[in-house]
Amino acid sequence: MPTYTPPLRDMQFVMHEVLKVSDELKALPPHADVDADTINAVLEEGGKFAAEVAFPINISGDTEGCTLDKTTHAVTTPQGFKEAYAKYVEGGWAALSCDPAYGGQGLPFVVNQCFYEMMNSANQAWTMYPGLSHGAYECLHAHGTEEQKKIYLPKLTSGEWTGTMCLTEPHCGTDLGLLRTKAEPQADGTYRITGAKIFISAGEHDMTSNIVHLVLARLPDAPAGSKGISLFVVPKFKVNADGSLGERNAIYCGGLEHKMGIHGNATAQIVIDGATGTLVGQPHKGLAAMFVMMNAARLGVGNQSLGLTEVAFQNALAYAKDRIQMRSLSGTKAKDKPADPIIVHPDVRKMLLTAKAYAEGARALQCFCAVLLDKELSHPDEKVRKDSGEMLALLTPIVKAFITDNGFEATVMCQQVFGGHGYIKEWGMEQHVRDARINMIYEGTNTIQSLDLLGRKILGNNGASLKKFGKLVGQLVEEEGVNEKMAEFINPIAYLGDQMTKFTTEIGFKGLQNPDEVGAAAVDYLRVAGHLVFGYFFARMAQVALREIAAGNTDPFYGAKLQTARFYFAKLFPETATLMRTARAGSQVLMDTDLALA
Amino acid sequence: MPTYTPPLRDMQFVMHEVLKVSDELKALPPHADVDADTINAVLEEGGKFAAEVAFPINISGDTEGCTLDKTTHAVTTPQGFKEAYAKYVEGGWAALSCDPAYGGQGLPFVVNQCFYEMMNSANQAWTMYPGLSHGAYECLHAHGTEEQKKIYLPKLTSGEWTGTMCLTEPHCGTDLGLLRTKAEPQADGTYRITGAKIFISAGEHDMTSNIVHLVLARLPDAPAGSKGISLFVVPKFKVNADGSLGERNAIYCGGLEHKMGIHGNATAQIVIDGATGTLVGQPHKGLAAMFVMMNAARLGVGNQSLGLTEVAFQNALAYAKDRIQMRSLSGTKAKDKPADPIIVHPDVRKMLLTAKAYAEGARALQCFCAVLLDKELSHPDEKVRKDSGEMLALLTPIVKAFITDNGFEATVMCQQVFGGHGYIKEWGMEQHVRDARINMIYEGTNTIQSLDLLGRKILGNNGASLKKFGKLVGQLVEEEGVNEKMAEFINPIAYLGDQMTKFTTEIGFKGLQNPDEVGAAAVDYLRVAGHLVFGYFFARMAQVALREIAAGNTDPFYGAKLQTARFYFAKLFPETATLMRTARAGSQVLMDTDLALA
Repeated sequence: MPTYTPPLRDMQFVMHEVLKVSDELKALPPHADVDADTINAVLEEGGKFAAEVAFPINISGDTEGCTLDKTTHAVTTPQGFKEAYAKYVEGGWAALSCDPAYGGQGLPFVVNQCFYEMMNSANQAWTMYPGLSHGAYECLHAHGTEEQKKIYLPKLTSGEWTGTMCLTEPHCGTDLGLLRTKAEPQADGTYRITGAKIFISAGEHDMTSNIVHLVLARLPDAPAGSKGISLFVVPKFKVNADGSLGERNAIYCGGLEHKMGIHGNATAQIVIDGATGTLVGQPHKGLAAMFVMMNAARLGVGNQSLGLTEVAFQNALAYAKDRIQMRSLSGTKAKDKPADPIIVHPDVRKMLLTAKAYAEGARALQCFCAVLLDKELSHPDEKVRKDSGEMLALLTPIVKAFITDNGFEATVMCQQVFGGHGYIKEWGMEQHVRDARINMIYEGTNTIQSLDLLGRKILGNNGASLKKFGKLVGQLVEEEGVNEKMAEFINPIAYLGDQMTKFTTEIGFKGLQNPDEVGAAAVDYLRVAGHLVFGYFFARMAQVALREIAAGNTDPFYGAKLQTARFYFAKLFPETATLMRTARAGSQVLMDTDLALA
Repeated sequence: MPTYTPPLRDMQFVMHEVLKVSDELKALPPHADVDADTINAVLEEGGKFAAEVAFPINISGDTEGCTLDKTTHAVTTPQGFKEAYAKYVEGGWAALSCDPAYGGQGLPFVVNQCFYEMMNSANQAWTMYPGLSHGAYECLHAHGTEEQKKIYLPKLTSGEWTGTMCLTEPHCGTDLGLLRTKAEPQADGTYRITGAKIFISAGEHDMTSNIVHLVLARLPDAPAGSKGISLFVVPKFKVNADGSLGERNAIYCGGLEHKMGIHGNATAQIVIDGATGTLVGQPHKGLAAMFVMMNAARLGVGNQSLGLTEVAFQNALAYAKDRIQMRSLSGTKAKDKPADPIIVHPDVRKMLLTAKAYAEGARALQCFCAVLLDKELSHPDEKVRKDSGEMLALLTPIVKAFITDNGFEATVMCQQVFGGHGYIKEWGMEQHVRDARINMIYEGTNTIQSLDLLGRKILGNNGASLKKFGKLVGQLVEEEGVNEKMAEFINPIAYLGDQMTKFTTEIGFKGLQNPDEVGAAAVDYLRVAGHLVFGYFFARMAQVALREIAAGNTDPFYGAKLQTARFYFAKLFPETATLMRTARAGSQVLMDTDLALA
């Protein structure tokens, strides 16, 4: 019953009309000849894959889930998952943004980002198998030895094998410094690894002949805490010198979690029982190496919620036009029917527009970040690489937390549009809510993201990164400050930008005296920052739309964009009024509550 | 693993110290001798039933769900549900607030309310079986013929039979005027009823020998729309003159819904295939009769979310004290451990306190409403009955929508406290979120509640009802306006009360010109009203706590209450700043969006 149409027009608008992606790519040697037509053609095909292959097995995958054979430790994925993966490999999709040196197509990250948005709309649980795999590829590409790269990268690029990240243990998730898995050096230069991991997404499955686990563990001489963690590659099947599969390694799935959502993905308890692995990067520097992967993963998680927001919106919109119930408050609209379609009701429209605005704001931000990543990786000028990396570091926690919080709110609202039917599995809406919920938790909870933003990224360098983003806002304000038509979009961000600068200084001073003040303000602060960023992109999108309309372009897309931007500033952006107050309310009302929390 | 402790101390505080329930009951002839000791003793036993009988089968009931035998139309409830129900009947719990004329214990509604809060904490899905049944009891008690009462009320009072409400049909939920089920008068005075109902909670099960369905249907001469709906009682088994069970009636379960939550409750598709029923109340006045039940049900739904908020809070608090992860930002707290318990982190405390404050605010409001209902039903003075009924009518949509929205937010936050473990079924937290979600939808979606509040209850009588509540606020402001210690609790509600009065007039004028302005503001308006009401009760609770502390009472309960109240005003109440803005942003940005919602 649910449907999904890839939002190609909006992607093209963001990439080509707002961000001028092709111009940016021209400056990057590996992507200099990637033009708009190439991007559009790839995404059109990618959208077909998402809608026609991944989407039809989304609800069935949720209903079926994964099963573990406790004797053989084999995991069976839901019906159709394996076949869809074979088509994915066959289509070369795994190689999209991989290094040509290992068989990749070398397309920029921004294209992969848009492709993944569509796959996440279609089927988040399924998409996590290739998604995790791509993370492992990136980590080995950045930190692996030549031999590791030679063995693993071609197979990860082709999709013949998949990869995982094995970080969490039962007693440690956020605080990886507590981890206990051991790695003992062997005479042949390998390591014997022993421990227990949990929450390993795509940890075991029946789609590929091998799985490349990246495992955090401690060497015998490791210092305590997070500075004593090393990274190892531990394949499910050992690999012979000729690249063929050798004997089964002692790393296996000991159990599958029963979860709220993403049922189609095997969330595995991984038992490592003296498995053989090789060291990735330097001893005791494993966490830093893993962070390469985690930063990309955080952008990926925001992208998951963007995907869910979009597909939830599309289906809620279709339902709201179709479902008739009650009459409009302002008089009958559908005279030929016994009731009006529920889209006539103001609050139904508000719920739909909330999802639409959150999707479009997120898409602009995600694409902007993807281009930053491409520039960080490939720009010939070191300063541009550094600046891009800093801006990306600032925006990453906002992408992760703001987009996933919004995505949950939006999927809940889209479910609400369906009334009682929204609670019923067959309609697909409640699954979006359950799937969206994990995105607020994994890859660093949203609270952790807020501390990363305010504590590390902003106060950690005295607001320098924030000023860089503030400069972008300032440029836009200057450009459009005298344009009356832009005032409704420019004034709110100009005002909020000033407020934030002031508040950041305040909280910086308070935090020096009492670090809990930072912790008390951080979550609210991140949402304010998120609205500043979304506000900025909505203003830029409105700017383009107004120009096109002024130039006589009659494509209704531009009018629609203006309506969405107006809605955003009128009904969502004012959340900042409360957030500034509660952020300023300080830590005492939280910390001075030992009686209440006894 | 999860635990539940009945919050008896807080119930006693609200009932005896804040609301002085016993004094109120003294004025009600049927309850004049119900003193505090009686109430406390009943609730202590009730709490044991909830914690020891209903709670242990909550997670297993969710995992197992209900099953339908398509051949016999028999529904099997999860393991232990039937046995728990037998204990419930044996303990006389079904009869708690029923009429002694039919075997009831005649206790006031406020006691039943607190008992049900605990049962909802323990197991919402199970509690819906007796809960729906009590609704059917109330409806028949108010509108049944003497014969219907004689046949059905004793069995519903004892719990030997249960009852249902059969309203919704596939094409109509909110808009019952569209319903199609037919009732044809028969020569013997009965009716032959034919139709299809969906979403019938507790619609079929294996707990009792008979089920009493209350069914909305149309008589042959019925006017179109909601003024042509009549109410019928249609038992699963016909009842012989001597009260024994006769032949099987042609009303049966045709399917069970697969839902997001409340899996232990059978949400039935009910096929009515020429079943025999009898008319309840007047022809074509069925909706009015059913509304007696629906208003009580709306209070009951708020109570469900209160229960879930409380149990989620208790478990999140225990986890936050137990789970160690990272160090406090303001320096190591648990020196003997490798990390600090996560309760040291400001945002973890904020999430916990949010749930606690929403539970305590809701409990005060629910008890206040329950006393209003007792007064409406039993006060000897007609004016008191009428006033109580009007105040209750005003507060009912706030109870339903504000408490259930808060309950969802609170259960999501409590789940977040658990990090990754919150997403795993065994910990029980994700179930609370899934269960809490339905409460925002059924018994009139929360949007419908907001239209009922602003459109009907407030603007419908020119703000008269709101003024009545405003008077209560005004009295408190007058009482405590010069008490410096109360200023932090009194000032915000005094200010918000003034703002609301002004805004209500504004929206009244705007609504006269364009009714969509009311629809555009209603949801935000209801949340503002909710905060005014919660703020009022937190101020009253703080008043009592301050008095006790001033009088030398050293019970830490009072200090805890003050801390919770302070948190509420500092971190939750300021949501009104945004809500007033977005409510005032008007309808145009919603309605003038046909391009965006094309």
